[in-house]
Amino acid sequence: MDILHVLNLDALSHGLANLSMFPYFDMAHYTVSIMALREQPGALAVSRVSPLACWFSSMLFCFGGAVLSGIMMAEPAVAPLSNSTNVLLASIIWYLVFYCPQDLAYCCAALLPLRLVLSAMKEVTRTWKVLGGVVQAHGKYKDSLMVMIANGWAKGAGGGLISNFEQLVRGVWKPETNELLKMSYPTKITLVGAVLFALQHTRYLPVQKHYLMLIYTTFTVVNKSRMMLTGSSTSPFAVIESAIYKTLFTGHSPYAALTGDIRKASITNGTSNGLAAADKESGENGATGQCSPTCSAKGENGSPKAKEASENAETKKCK
Amino acid sequence: MDILHVLNLDALSHGLANLSMFPYFDMAHYTVSIMALREQPGALAVSRVSPLACWFSSMLFCFGGAVLSGIMMAEPAVAPLSNSTNVLLASIIWYLVFYCPQDLAYCCAALLPLRLVLSAMKEVTRTWKVLGGVVQAHGKYKDSLMVMIANGWAKGAGGGLISNFEQLVRGVWKPETNELLKMSYPTKITLVGAVLFALQHTRYLPVQKHYLMLIYTTFTVVNKSRMMLTGSSTSPFAVIESAIYKTLFTGHSPYAALTGDIRKASITNGTSNGLAAADKESGENGATGQCSPTCSAKGENGSPKAKEASENAETKKCK
Amino acid sequence: MDILHVLNLDALSHGLANLSMFPYFDMAHYTVSIMALREQPGALAVSRVSPLACWFSSMLFCFGGAVLSGIMMAEPAVAPLSNSTNVLLASIIWYLVFYCPQDLAYCCAALLPLRLVLSAMKEVTRTWKVLGGVVQAHGKYKDSLMVMIANGWAKGAGGGLISNFEQLVRGVWKPETNELLKMSYPTKITLVGAVLFALQHTRYLPVQKHYLMLIYTTFTVVNKSRMMLTGSSTSPFAVIESAIYKTLFTGHSPYAALTGDIRKASITNGTSNGLAAADKESGENGATGQCSPTCSAKGENGSPKAKEASENAETKKCK
Repeated sequence: MDILHVLNLDALSHGLANLSMFPYFDMAHYTVSIMALREQPGALAVSRVSPLACWFSSMLFCFGGAVLSGIMMAEPAVAPLSNSTNVLLASIIWYLVFYCPQDLAYCCAALLPLRLVLSAMKEVTRTWKVLGGVVQAHGKYKDSLMVMIANGWAKGAGGGLISNFEQLVRGVWKPETNELLKMSYPTKITLVGAVLFALQHTRYLPVQKHYLMLIYTTFTVVNKSRMMLTGSSTSPFAVIESAIYKTLFTGHSPYAALTGDIRKASITNGTSNGLAAADKESGENGATGQCSPTCSAKGENGSPKAKEASENAETKKCK
Repeated sequence: MDILHVLNLDALSHGLANLSMFPYFDMAHYTVSIMALREQPGALAVSRVSPLACWFSSMLFCFGGAVLSGIMMAEPAVAPLSNSTNVLLASIIWYLVFYCPQDLAYCCAALLPLRLVLSAMKEVTRTWKVLGGVVQAHGKYKDSLMVMIANGWAKGAGGGLISNFEQLVRGVWKPETNELLKMSYPTKITLVGAVLFALQHTRYLPVQKHYLMLIYTTFTVVNKSRMMLTGSSTSPFAVIESAIYKTLFTGHSPYAALTGDIRKASITNGTSNGLAAADKESGENGATGQCSPTCSAKGENGSPKAKEASENAETKKCK
Repeated sequence: MDILHVLNLDALSHGLANLSMFPYFDMAHYTVSIMALREQPGALAVSRVSPLACWFSSMLFCFGGAVLSGIMMAEPAVAPLSNSTNVLLASIIWYLVFYCPQDLAYCCAALLPLRLVLSAMKEVTRTWKVLGGVVQAHGKYKDSLMVMIANGWAKGAGGGLISNFEQLVRGVWKPETNELLKMSYPTKITLVGAVLFALQHTRYLPVQKHYLMLIYTTFTVVNKSRMMLTGSSTSPFAVIESAIYKTLFTGHSPYAALTGDIRKASITNGTSNGLAAADKESGENGATGQCSPTCSAKGENGSPKAKEASENAETKKCK
């Protein structure tokens, strides 16, 4: 029975590893990505004023990972355009999502059951993209773990990582936020995936590739579905993150008071450069010395709380 | 007589196709480009405060297409600098336009007859640049029409497409406008050219290259001269654009009311992020549902008008 | 005695030329760079909110030159990550500078004598980086002086040249300033070095490479130490710059009055786009025609003074 179980999993994982992303999974990825763009504030207005900017923005949502990876690895950034079939597919979906008569396409795809299936399928493509990035980097830089992680991450979460510049195409500029300052769940899970696949590829992680693909894909699909169904946005890594943060990044604590101020500042002024404002404010308070090597216990508890609070504030603003 | 006519055209088109851009046409391109930079708000002030930033900005106006194409095709972005003669030529013209004693150079070149000739010559270089981009992309990606169009467009209209970053060099940042959101005439005509030359190169357009070069060059030169002489900024594609827009991009119309709002918003507040503001305003009005699949006839007429109005407003601001 | 002197210098310069930057000089470079980041307004707040953004920003401070050079020369921008040892070293220093318990690491390194030694060692790495950039460019573009200068400059002063985008990682956006508009001392000295090494490499400067390395390194180290000890920020090139500026860039002078206005404007409003503001203000005054070919003697004296004043204002703001 145990052997059968293993055999079944083996068949399943091999089946998954040989799955072709084209056309169904790619289509799901394009649909979910372009719907995410449409739900950005101002995106619909742009789609009326300049269909071309809207199309370009959509392509960055769909192929952002390939573009970012291209720039990082000195491969042509226009390479995604050379795959005419995929660009055509993405363009048709873009047209349907934004300009379908009676808005039928978007309204149908936005129904929860269909959206759930599409989102799950999109998560599957993530595995392939991350793996593709890791393998590509391995071809150029043998055994350089960091390049493999960086490229896998870029391929898988490129759309998010270049979001500042994607927004710029639509005439929106929000320098105070980016995916490094405030990682979203997809960016986090992609980073985890890139680390795992890079470790597997360099044999530091003693597991076969198709098993890892199965495990990672299952995790992302299940977790995404759970988040959509429960409407919760709590990251499954929250506990680990908090533990790492408390252990590693609170050593030098005179600044803890300031992180408390950040919360206050980012709530009171929703304008640009919340962080800079926070810094100024703390400077005005005069209470927080920048180099005094003292350690307040209150601070150590305070700062992660402040972080969470600002996280919530952020999430609310984005939704 | 018919044969003679054909023979004459043939000789003319062959003569044009064998025309060397260096040095006279290149010089005209540099002169017109750098004069356009000088006429940007704030550019003269920058030229006094930081000649280096001004020079770098000028080089982006002159060689922006090569830089953008380089980044897109993973060719060295500094490649234009390797052509010392052309950089030297552009630098001399930059110096004369900005710092000539008594401002003689600029005042002379700004005289209408001379400027007309220079602008016409600059239009000629466009044909060569677009064609160069198309051929280069064809060398890397056989038969990928989209890459050929993208690279031809980038080569021909690069200075405009990267204008946000060119402005950044001068300390100016206008995220709310870019050439994709609001295409200028040169960017449009270059896109048309890139499409035509790419179609010709892949044999979809059954016309010989030297004929197409003659036709396209004649069109751009005549049209540019007409626009300069009449002072009109109406695009020759306005009718076609409007027809395409009405046919393709007004299917989902509950948003039409909002596009009306955009006009209002972009007139009332000339500040940053007009689109975002418009979006907020419509949200506050509450009257425009974002997903209600209803269709108001008024909206369909209204939105192109709104577009034109905002176009006029934009043009006035730019001049 | 003369021969002995020459022999000694020869031995010294050869010794310097064969010096390995790894690990001590590289470590000094990382330490000084990351401390400079920590002293940026808002950087400490970011280090609490998002250690990842802080790490990425630090890496851009440490390896910015390699990244910028990579993008310019179409080499992979992630290449610095492939040198695991150096990235690990920089990461450890980043951790110690930002999160060391009791803030010991930063407070120690910030003591003047240690900081002086570290800064001097960092200056030594500059020579190697500039030379590396010049040699690399020479390999790709034989005898193209400008590409060699550009790449040497990018390698040596990359962190400064891409500072706008480094700040963006930390959520800060200051479009009104950049290293081209307002060059800092390190950027200037690197440019001078890039010019010298490029001239030496193309045999226009008849001096042996190891001698030039000795002279340039000595100059940068001595000058940096002098500036740190006296607290002065006057550039050693101020006189030459002023002379060049007066000779070359004041030919067309109706704008001189405006440069006076710039000073006023940039003092009265410390907000964004000081230059644009200045431009508007001068427009409102109506007194300064933009194309009138007249020449006021007062203006020629006035403008460099205005420049110096705005330099001082800038410096004060940065500190």
